[in-house]
Amino acid sequence: MQRLITQTLLRRFLNKCPTHTDRLISLSARMAKSKFEYVRNFEIDDTCLRNCYIVVRLDGRNFHKFAEDHNFLKPNDDRALALMVRSATSVLEELEDINIAYGQSDEFSFIFKRSSTWFRRRASKLMTHVASQFSSSYVFYWGEFFSDQPLLHPPSFDGRVVLYPSNRNLRDYLSWRQADCHINNLYNTAFWALVQRGGCTTAQAEERLKGTVAADKNELLFSEFNINYNNEPSAYRKGTTLLWGRTDEASTKKIKPSNGDERQVLVTRSRRQVTTHHCDIIGDQFWDEHPDILEPDD
Amino acid sequence: MQRLITQTLLRRFLNKCPTHTDRLISLSARMAKSKFEYVRNFEIDDTCLRNCYIVVRLDGRNFHKFAEDHNFLKPNDDRALALMVRSATSVLEELEDINIAYGQSDEFSFIFKRSSTWFRRRASKLMTHVASQFSSSYVFYWGEFFSDQPLLHPPSFDGRVVLYPSNRNLRDYLSWRQADCHINNLYNTAFWALVQRGGCTTAQAEERLKGTVAADKNELLFSEFNINYNNEPSAYRKGTTLLWGRTDEASTKKIKPSNGDERQVLVTRSRRQVTTHHCDIIGDQFWDEHPDILEPDD
Amino acid sequence: MQRLITQTLLRRFLNKCPTHTDRLISLSARMAKSKFEYVRNFEIDDTCLRNCYIVVRLDGRNFHKFAEDHNFLKPNDDRALALMVRSATSVLEELEDINIAYGQSDEFSFIFKRSSTWFRRRASKLMTHVASQFSSSYVFYWGEFFSDQPLLHPPSFDGRVVLYPSNRNLRDYLSWRQADCHINNLYNTAFWALVQRGGCTTAQAEERLKGTVAADKNELLFSEFNINYNNEPSAYRKGTTLLWGRTDEASTKKIKPSNGDERQVLVTRSRRQVTTHHCDIIGDQFWDEHPDILEPDD
Amino acid sequence: MQRLITQTLLRRFLNKCPTHTDRLISLSARMAKSKFEYVRNFEIDDTCLRNCYIVVRLDGRNFHKFAEDHNFLKPNDDRALALMVRSATSVLEELEDINIAYGQSDEFSFIFKRSSTWFRRRASKLMTHVASQFSSSYVFYWGEFFSDQPLLHPPSFDGRVVLYPSNRNLRDYLSWRQADCHINNLYNTAFWALVQRGGCTTAQAEERLKGTVAADKNELLFSEFNINYNNEPSAYRKGTTLLWGRTDEASTKKIKPSNGDERQVLVTRSRRQVTTHHCDIIGDQFWDEHPDILEPDD
Repeated sequence: MQRLITQTLLRRFLNKCPTHTDRLISLSARMAKSKFEYVRNFEIDDTCLRNCYIVVRLDGRNFHKFAEDHNFLKPNDDRALALMVRSATSVLEELEDINIAYGQSDEFSFIFKRSSTWFRRRASKLMTHVASQFSSSYVFYWGEFFSDQPLLHPPSFDGRVVLYPSNRNLRDYLSWRQADCHINNLYNTAFWALVQRGGCTTAQAEERLKGTVAADKNELLFSEFNINYNNEPSAYRKGTTLLWGRTDEASTKKIKPSNGDERQVLVTRSRRQVTTHHCDIIGDQFWDEHPDILEPDD
Repeated sequence: MQRLITQTLLRRFLNKCPTHTDRLISLSARMAKSKFEYVRNFEIDDTCLRNCYIVVRLDGRNFHKFAEDHNFLKPNDDRALALMVRSATSVLEELEDINIAYGQSDEFSFIFKRSSTWFRRRASKLMTHVASQFSSSYVFYWGEFFSDQPLLHPPSFDGRVVLYPSNRNLRDYLSWRQADCHINNLYNTAFWALVQRGGCTTAQAEERLKGTVAADKNELLFSEFNINYNNEPSAYRKGTTLLWGRTDEASTKKIKPSNGDERQVLVTRSRRQVTTHHCDIIGDQFWDEHPDILEPDD
Repeated sequence: MQRLITQTLLRRFLNKCPTHTDRLISLSARMAKSKFEYVRNFEIDDTCLRNCYIVVRLDGRNFHKFAEDHNFLKPNDDRALALMVRSATSVLEELEDINIAYGQSDEFSFIFKRSSTWFRRRASKLMTHVASQFSSSYVFYWGEFFSDQPLLHPPSFDGRVVLYPSNRNLRDYLSWRQADCHINNLYNTAFWALVQRGGCTTAQAEERLKGTVAADKNELLFSEFNINYNNEPSAYRKGTTLLWGRTDEASTKKIKPSNGDERQVLVTRSRRQVTTHHCDIIGDQFWDEHPDILEPDD
Repeated sequence: MQRLITQTLLRRFLNKCPTHTDRLISLSARMAKSKFEYVRNFEIDDTCLRNCYIVVRLDGRNFHKFAEDHNFLKPNDDRALALMVRSATSVLEELEDINIAYGQSDEFSFIFKRSSTWFRRRASKLMTHVASQFSSSYVFYWGEFFSDQPLLHPPSFDGRVVLYPSNRNLRDYLSWRQADCHINNLYNTAFWALVQRGGCTTAQAEERLKGTVAADKNELLFSEFNINYNNEPSAYRKGTTLLWGRTDEASTKKIKPSNGDERQVLVTRSRRQVTTHHCDIIGDQFWDEHPDILEPDD
C-alpha cells in the first residue's frame, strides 16, 4: 500500500492535537478518510444465486446450559417454545419476503422467497438481520413468557444460509427438519418419562433407550407410562410452522350521513398477520392447502 | 431428485396418523430423515482465507428512527453510546479471538485474530454470533443505561465480514472508521449547535453547512457558540476502542498455617478484562503502546 | 507463521549442498515438505450449488485480431466455424456429463447436467478443463480445417461458470445466446455486403446501419444485394448446437457356424456420438424433440 | 420467471420462418434478447481478495497415460520438460502481472502480483486464461521439441486458484512445491535405476523402495549404480523457475548525419524477457538476489 507524504503530517497532528491546528486536522482527517477508503474494496460480493429459495437457519448457542440455567421444563417447556415462536414472528414481521418459517427445540428456519431481491440477496445481510432481530426479540419478549424466571444473561444464536433451487429441494429441507423434530421429541419424551416417572437416573434412561427403534419407544411409553405418543401435543411432535394469513378485525367507526346524525357503525378489516401451525408439512396436504408458499419451478 | 417408493407410504401415514400406525410412522420418519438428509449437501463452505484479519462490522438498522423513538440526545447521547460499548464488551467476553473492537455512532467493528480458527473461520458463524450476541446484549443491558426510557421495540443490527491480509490494511480500515467518526461528529456538533442554540431549523442548519470544510465548522463552533471542538469529549471525537487488559483484583483469603491459627490475608489476582479507550488509533503511538494487538505480517 | 528451528538448518544445507550432506538434505526436504504443507489449507472450496445446471462459457481472447492475422473470411469463415465445432466436440468427448453445447462466432457454452458430480462440481476444475481441452484441440485440429493457412501463434480462450437453477432459466440462457447470434449475424451480413459488394468503406457501412432495426437490414440486403437473409446458411443464422446422439455403424464380422463354413456377415452397432444441429433452440419444438437434455425441475 | 405474451408469437415465427415474416422475426429476436438478458444476473462475482498473491496452478490430466502414449523417457524426459517450460514462458509473455512461475513434472504454478488488477482480479478469468494459453502453446510448440514423435491427441491441464496473503505464505507455497519435486525426483531416479539398470520389475523396484528414507535412496543410487544424486541435472532436482529479466540485444541501425553519408551503426537495446532458473528457491539466497519478485507485506 502506497504511503502518501501527507500521512506523516497527519499523524503528527492527530497525535498531538494542539488547538491551533484544528484547521489542519480537519483537512487531514478528510484527506485521511479518502486515503483510507480503499479498504472498502476488500469487501466481497456474496449475492445469493437468483431463483433459489434462501434458507436462514438459527441455532441456539450452548442452549443445553442455557436451559439448565433458566430451569426449562423437560422434555418440552411451553414458555420457551412460545418465546421462540414470538421471536420468529418478530422476524417475519420486521424483515421482508419471508413466506414461511419452521422451528423446533432451539432452532428456527426462515425461508425467503426465491424471487426476493431484499438487500440485493446479500447472504451476510440476510443472515445477520435474522440473527439480530431474533436475538433482540428473544430478550425483549422474555418477560411475557417467563414472568417468574428472570433472564440471567443474554442468549446467542448462530445462523447460516443455504440455497435450494427447486420446490422439491425446499420441501425436502423442511421435511428433514420436521423428521428431526419427530425423532428427537420421541426420544426425549421416552427419556424424561423414564427419569421423571420411572425413577431412572439419566445414565440408566440412556442405557434403556440405546438401540431402540421408534416403535420400541412408542411401546415403552404406552406400556410403562400409559402415554399414547400420538396424543402428545402436536406442537411438540410437529414443531411450529409460521405463515402469513389474514384475519378479520372488527372495529367501530363513526360516520355522519349527510342527511342524518352521526352514529357508530361496525366495520371489518382484513389484516395480514403471522399464523401459527403445528401440522405435518412432509405430506402433500399442507402444500395443497397453502398453494401460495411456493413459487413455480421456472 | 429421485422419489422413493416409500414416500407415498410415508405421506399417507403422516397425513392420517391413526394410532395403530405408530410403529410404521416412526419407521417412516427415520427413513424419511435419512432420505431427506441429502439437503445438507447444499450448504456451501464459507471459510475465511487463512492469515487474514477477519473484521465483522455491525450497523444499526433504521437507527435514525430508533433514536427518535427513544429520545436520544443530539448530537451524542451518552447513555446510547455507553450501551453500545456495553454490548460490544459482551461480544468480546463471550466470543473467542477478538483482539480489538472499534465503535462510533450506531456501528461497531470486531476484529478476529488473523490466526483464529474459531468455528473453523466460517464467515457465517462468526458474523451471526457477533450480530446475535450484540443484539441480545443491547436489549438485556438497556435498563442499566436508560432507566427512565423504556425500550419500545427490539432493535436490529446488520453485519458483514471483510478480510484484511496485512497489518497496514487493518490499520487503514480502523483509520477509515475513525476518520469517518471525526468527520461525522464535527458535522453533527455544528449542525445541532445551529439548531439547538442558534435557533436554526434543520433545513437552515443544513444550508449553513453546505460546502463548508472542516475548518469552517471549527470556526463556526468557536466564533458563534464558543465551542472549542477539540475540547469536546474524546469519546465523541475519537469513538471507542476496546482492548483486552489486565487489572489487579484484591480479595481476602483464609489461610491456616500448620503451626498457627487460621487467619485472613489479602491476595491480589490479575484478571483479564476488556478495557475502554477514546484515543487516536490512526497514528503510530497507539500501536507502539499496544504491540500485542497485531500479529506479524508473515 | 511459526518458524521452526530446523528451518535455518535446512536452508543452510539447501543453499550449500556439499555432497556429504545428502542424508541431511533429504531428511530436511521431507521435513520441509510437511512443514510447508500448511499452505494447502489456503485453498477455498468452490463447489457449485447442487441441482443447478453448470454452464461454462468460453470466449476467444482478442479474436478480432486473431481473425485478421489468419485471414478469416467475412462475415463468416466456414473453416473457422468448423474448427470451433471440432474443438467443442472434443470437449464433449473427453469430459463427463455435458449434455448440450451451443456455439456461435468465437464463443461456446457447455452445459453440465444439473445432477453431475464430476470433480465434485468444483467450479475451477470444470472451467479449466473445458478451457484447456478446447484450446489444445483448437491448435491440434487447426491443420484439418486451415490447410493453406499456417497457425501463427497459439490462441487463448477465457471461461466463466454460471449456474442455472431451473429448466426455464437454462433455456432462457441458450435463447439469449441464440438471439445474440441472430442479431450479430444479421448486422455483420449487412455490414460486409455493403463493404464487399456495395463499395462502402467500413466507416460508411457503419454509418448506413446506425439506428436501423433488423427489418431495415433485411430490406437493405434484399433490395440492394438480392440476399434473402432467411436463405443464408442456418449455421450462420442459428449457430451450432451439439448433442449426444446414436448412429448405426455397419461393419463386417466373421462367423463360423458349428455346422458350416466360416463366412462374413454384416453387423450393425449403435454408437454414442456427438451430433451437430443448426436449428432454432428458442422455441419448444427442439426441446420436445429432445426430451433427454433437460432433467425435471425437482 | 414471468412469461411475456410476445413469447408465443416469437416462437411461432422462429419455428416457421416464412420469408415475409422477416420483419417480425427480427423485431422478435431483439425483444427476445432483451427479455432473456436477465440470465446475466446469475453470474457470480469471484473477485480475488486484494493485496494477496494469486497463484494459479496447472496439473496435467492423466499425464501418466499421456507420457506412455508419447514414449516419454523415464524418469525425466528433457523434451517434455522443455516443452512445459516453453508453454509456461508463453503464459508469462501473453498474460499480465505474472512475476514468477515454478514448474516440475507435469505441473506449473503462476504467481500474479499481489497488487495486480488484471481482469479485475476475477478468479475465473485468471485461471482459464492460464489454462488456455498453456494448453494451446503446448500443442503449438510440440513439434519444436518432439520432432520425431507426433502428438497423438490434444492434452488437457486443469487449474485452480489459491490466494496467499503474505510473502512468507507465498515463499512457503513455492518451497512446498520444490520440496515435492525433490522427494518425487529422488524416488523416481532410484526407481528407474532399479528397473532400467538393475533388472528389477516395476513391482520389485517398488518393493525395494518401500519404507526407505531419502538417505537410503541416495545410498542405493551411489553404491549400486554409482550415481551421485547431487550431480544429477539441477533441472530434475530443483524444477524450473521463470522470472522476468533483461538482455541486451545488439542490432544495426542506419543513420544519416546531416553533414555526411548514410552509414550503419551498432546499437544495443535492453529487452525484457523471461529467464529460466534451476536453483534452490527455499533458502533466502534466491530471494535476496531477486528483491523485485515480492512486494512488501503492507
